[in-house]
Amino acid sequence: MVFVELERSSSGCASEFLEESLGAIGSDDVSLKITHCGVCYADVITTRNKFGRSKYPVVPGHEIVGIVKEVGSNVRQFKVGDHVGVGTYVNSCRDCEYCGMDMDNYCSKGPVGTINHLDVDGTITKGGYSSHIVVHERYCSRIPNDYPLALAAPLLCAGITVYSPMMRHKMNQPGKSLGVIGLGGLGHLAVKFGKAFGLSITVFSTSISKKNEALSKLGADRFVISSDEEQMKAMANSLNFIIDTASGDHPFDQYMSLLKASGTFVLVGAPSEVKLSPISLIRGMKSISGSAAGGLKEKQEMLDFCAEKKIYPEIEIISIQYINEALERLIKGDVKYRFVIDIENSLK
Amino acid sequence: MVFVELERSSSGCASEFLEESLGAIGSDDVSLKITHCGVCYADVITTRNKFGRSKYPVVPGHEIVGIVKEVGSNVRQFKVGDHVGVGTYVNSCRDCEYCGMDMDNYCSKGPVGTINHLDVDGTITKGGYSSHIVVHERYCSRIPNDYPLALAAPLLCAGITVYSPMMRHKMNQPGKSLGVIGLGGLGHLAVKFGKAFGLSITVFSTSISKKNEALSKLGADRFVISSDEEQMKAMANSLNFIIDTASGDHPFDQYMSLLKASGTFVLVGAPSEVKLSPISLIRGMKSISGSAAGGLKEKQEMLDFCAEKKIYPEIEIISIQYINEALERLIKGDVKYRFVIDIENSLK
Repeated sequence: MVFVELERSSSGCASEFLEESLGAIGSDDVSLKITHCGVCYADVITTRNKFGRSKYPVVPGHEIVGIVKEVGSNVRQFKVGDHVGVGTYVNSCRDCEYCGMDMDNYCSKGPVGTINHLDVDGTITKGGYSSHIVVHERYCSRIPNDYPLALAAPLLCAGITVYSPMMRHKMNQPGKSLGVIGLGGLGHLAVKFGKAFGLSITVFSTSISKKNEALSKLGADRFVISSDEEQMKAMANSLNFIIDTASGDHPFDQYMSLLKASGTFVLVGAPSEVKLSPISLIRGMKSISGSAAGGLKEKQEMLDFCAEKKIYPEIEIISIQYINEALERLIKGDVKYRFVIDIENSLK
Repeated sequence: MVFVELERSSSGCASEFLEESLGAIGSDDVSLKITHCGVCYADVITTRNKFGRSKYPVVPGHEIVGIVKEVGSNVRQFKVGDHVGVGTYVNSCRDCEYCGMDMDNYCSKGPVGTINHLDVDGTITKGGYSSHIVVHERYCSRIPNDYPLALAAPLLCAGITVYSPMMRHKMNQPGKSLGVIGLGGLGHLAVKFGKAFGLSITVFSTSISKKNEALSKLGADRFVISSDEEQMKAMANSLNFIIDTASGDHPFDQYMSLLKASGTFVLVGAPSEVKLSPISLIRGMKSISGSAAGGLKEKQEMLDFCAEKKIYPEIEIISIQYINEALERLIKGDVKYRFVIDIENSLK
């Protein structure tokens, strides 16, 4: 049943909001009553068919939080009533070297994305803008009991997308310095994780309007307007790490010059290309790395870490009826810092 | 005294071959009678003023091998008669965090290059196309007694330039796979180190003429013509590491697609720019890193490792009188795989 028709893409197709998920429960499956779903830029891409791969009807949403309603006979990790999160993928080959290392997100055969991907049974996956979802328990994460469900949603994509490379590149060493480019859904969580790790944090943004929030609310140590040459030069050779969450294009050489020797620049945003001088890498043995979402084990670690350290995303709670306006605002970057749909209350 | 006048650059200045080095011996200095000097592409750059920074007269050569003739009163590591190597830098601030970590090559104030750099005493450094050199003992490496002096020369720049990033990026894990782009002075040593580390090695080259030598003489496991789409595609997602020693421009995305997830591409060559799709980094959390020469401690480790494992560069020994022809051949890539000047015998 369609509750809200999402804005049509230029192809004229529609996306839908489903009352019931379509999957039948298998012996290893967990059936969730969805309470919340975060709104990621991936939802814009899929509903508007930006990559030309959307198969309508699309059900977006891959920051899914819910309560277990039913479990299959083989399910061991979860029971009815548990709080569970589902992120950006819901299946993988479970057999390749990456799946064997809890890195299903880099599955050799390609992980099956939560939204609009062809699953092994031939169906097209449907995401969290829905009342229910059925997922193999392997792809479910436990949300600690005392962690607010609405706040858990952004961790399942935005959170793990920055947490995973931060851990992999050892950004959890107190006293080291981190630059965060962009202060949206991903960037603000990179700042929060960085503070929890004991890092000294500099936020780089094109917008002075974010300065107060970055320093006062999020606790960053410095705020730099990236278009200000003098401010940028003053930061030369001062950072151990940079995490780039910006989606727009920007020059790379200038940021590389801010890294200390052996510094690492991690790209999690989506510029159209990466272009730099080889000198930016060779002088000071610097690195540029990319990262996409995160593995199952580290996702659980992140959720437990957030509960322990009381790290909470900043969110705007919306009803599903507001989603088209929210997606428009997201396109304009007008959100602090993540929309989360209150699915449960939207349906009352 | 000028023995050989090097080819003049377009600026009309001359480089010189000196019988005696100009430095006076200080209490921490080692005076070397130079026996051999490797010929690096840096020598072409400096004699021909490619970067517009050459200060004539230039004395090139930063793969210097010699025998200790005299030591200053404070010198503890070396004594008369020892075999010593000097590489790409002969001074640094000795005070910054990098110098403190035996990484003087990334000295915050800039290491003082062996050729044509302004030293702290105001003199311009002069390299190894010379009969003698005086160097602070800190920048001297011990060449193991049984290691042939001529063969040690290329290790001081070409060798350490590939050994340092190979060790830093953990390419010394037996069973892992390494791609080597380019098979010149640096590339052939990357193959030799890789074999000694127990890696499976694929050489990428534009020239089929190198196939037999790569496989039979150097012991590579596979040889791929990089312009052959089919050969390249067959290598997709198969390599843990790539080390890029090519000096010419080439596309990066194609090579990145050959890396497995979490694979690392290390740039030690000198293309004009690095340009790639962010997808090449993000999908599979891959990295591109750069590296320049190596630190003092790892240089000594490399020399000891080469002696222990009997790793010897492939060289063409030449006299200093042949140097202009050798530099011309080097520009054309016509050398297997490193020219080494037999300084001692050239002067007899």
